[in-house]
Amino acid sequence: MDVVSFARGVPAPECLPVAEMADCARSVIERDGRTVLSYGPGGGYGPLREWIAARHGVEPSRVVVTTSSLQGFGFVADELVGAGNRVFVEAPAYDRPLKLLSRLRAEVVGVPLDDEGLDSAVLERDLRDGPPPAFLYTNPTFQNPSGRTLSLERRRHLIELAHEHDLFILEDDPYGLVRFEGEPLPTLFELDSAAGGGGERVAYASSFSKTVAPGVRVGYLVLPPELAARVEARAVSTYISPPFLTQATVFEFLERGSFEPNLVRVNGLLKLRRDAMLAALDRDFPDTASWSRPQGGYFLWVDLPPDIRADDLQIAAEGVGVTFVKGSDFFTGHLAGEHELRLAYSFVSPEEIAEGVSRLAPLLSGSTAPATAL
Amino acid sequence: MDVVSFARGVPAPECLPVAEMADCARSVIERDGRTVLSYGPGGGYGPLREWIAARHGVEPSRVVVTTSSLQGFGFVADELVGAGNRVFVEAPAYDRPLKLLSRLRAEVVGVPLDDEGLDSAVLERDLRDGPPPAFLYTNPTFQNPSGRTLSLERRRHLIELAHEHDLFILEDDPYGLVRFEGEPLPTLFELDSAAGGGGERVAYASSFSKTVAPGVRVGYLVLPPELAARVEARAVSTYISPPFLTQATVFEFLERGSFEPNLVRVNGLLKLRRDAMLAALDRDFPDTASWSRPQGGYFLWVDLPPDIRADDLQIAAEGVGVTFVKGSDFFTGHLAGEHELRLAYSFVSPEEIAEGVSRLAPLLSGSTAPATAL
Repeated sequence: MDVVSFARGVPAPECLPVAEMADCARSVIERDGRTVLSYGPGGGYGPLREWIAARHGVEPSRVVVTTSSLQGFGFVADELVGAGNRVFVEAPAYDRPLKLLSRLRAEVVGVPLDDEGLDSAVLERDLRDGPPPAFLYTNPTFQNPSGRTLSLERRRHLIELAHEHDLFILEDDPYGLVRFEGEPLPTLFELDSAAGGGGERVAYASSFSKTVAPGVRVGYLVLPPELAARVEARAVSTYISPPFLTQATVFEFLERGSFEPNLVRVNGLLKLRRDAMLAALDRDFPDTASWSRPQGGYFLWVDLPPDIRADDLQIAAEGVGVTFVKGSDFFTGHLAGEHELRLAYSFVSPEEIAEGVSRLAPLLSGSTAPATAL
Repeated sequence: MDVVSFARGVPAPECLPVAEMADCARSVIERDGRTVLSYGPGGGYGPLREWIAARHGVEPSRVVVTTSSLQGFGFVADELVGAGNRVFVEAPAYDRPLKLLSRLRAEVVGVPLDDEGLDSAVLERDLRDGPPPAFLYTNPTFQNPSGRTLSLERRRHLIELAHEHDLFILEDDPYGLVRFEGEPLPTLFELDSAAGGGGERVAYASSFSKTVAPGVRVGYLVLPPELAARVEARAVSTYISPPFLTQATVFEFLERGSFEPNLVRVNGLLKLRRDAMLAALDRDFPDTASWSRPQGGYFLWVDLPPDIRADDLQIAAEGVGVTFVKGSDFFTGHLAGEHELRLAYSFVSPEEIAEGVSRLAPLLSGSTAPATAL
């Protein structure tokens, strides 16, 4: 029996633009090899930095192109967080940043999510009552792990709070462009700029992992000028300069005008998968479970029936050849997510999705799962 | 007047195998694009890891291919060094690791070098008299910054000391293959393996920056098994997986048999430069100065006349369009290297080298340099 992975938050192999990337790599090395194959600025390959800067309306010196946006998050956290400092995160939140924050011995404070994303009223109370945080880390659009998107009203509230309470926000937005339907919402970075914040209150992070290919490991940060200089210095002291070969290959892909058509193609492939998963869940899962209905991204979030624990279900699911990540992996500091889980629909085919959900569904009936688990 | 840079420790542009790397990148993406363009093991692109493992006679799981050997050094230091821990380094030493160690608040202890490299008798005394160090960091062959090479006798002594005193050695060897003449010496890693150490006392680090191209940012570590697992986990938590595109391109270059011929070509280009610099120094510099005569690598080390200070000379040299790095940048903790400097011959042409040395020489006469500097 083939295992169906709802655990892997990675693109399906057919999403990867293999032939064109091969040609882009060759072209850009032939054209600009002496730059691409040598050392250079720690902040990234110049032409890519300029492309990103133009897209976000900032000076290129405010852009730091990193070897993955996770490494960029690490640089920012290293700069801003001392031991014991508070950092606000979503609850649930993307687990890798949580681990980096715990290594820095930050006090990580989770702000709960609902269907409209992060509950900004709870954040407001925490800002008023507690010591000021180093920053808020948020993934407002098609969030990993929940697939939820912060509503426009809450986005505006967040920016108000940032100005009132001198709150610094790190907006992680790898999935924003991976939208299948519905109108795009303004990013927090855009709202802050429009509110005259000049991008001083919001740092923006994204990557080309979901729009081009994860294996290139090209992430980026758009930062306030002073922080950009510090983060670039940290990049230099970590790896001198990033691998320009990958960054230049991505730049070539952009320059050829391949970014938008590829995104349309990739979003089409992913929409088929999201549709297959929602259809299977609607058909097979019991009414006592519920799940998010994302308009984009890689993930959806399941609230299990109250008598089903995710860790029991995980063991039972292994027995029928299905993997997922249990909700508690995305919380920190207190017991939560015990009856929740993350399903990734990005990697597997629509047929595998239907098969995997049909294998999981009987385990949610309330008797099978715990019994198998014991 | 064009500036002559003896500061840049980077290969001359003609050393870079541009056309072949362009073809390697295209080929490997076409052949293995779904692996190359996706996520994978944190320890690096499988085939490259296996190639390196075979070269060093270890299991692939002991190899961690990193985004530059500097990043690898950072991972090892993060694992082994706590605040206040002692770390032995050469004096002078490569400056970037010194900065990383100081950020970790290590107690950095310099062991002096002479013409035979690190003075192992001094190291022995320090090991006997002081608290045990977390490790010794050494760059024994064509050292950056001094160009000096540790003698065979001292290499053997170092391995004896490692066994007697339970000393862990991190051998950084980016220049070992960049040899123009003379017999290669065994690495510390090889001596330790031959002595039955099983590679448990010596971690080996190298990179393809000097043998293929620095812009690919492909460095690697060969580590004891338990440390390899910890370092790989740290790589995963830092960037999930490294950029396989660059690592796979290097692998393709190796697979085609291009590594050795390219190395012969590069070493020929660098030997011309080393020869040009030694000839110019012999011709133009005063007898009161002396310098190392490396058989390979990128650098040589100058002891200035006793009345010339490197920082004064640096200001005067700027006036005549010559740059270098002053000796004191390579020492830590105490004032040293005031009358020493590092000259890199790797980047500039033989003609520029002759011109640069002829511009520097008059400044060493004892009166010009300080006068211009003031």
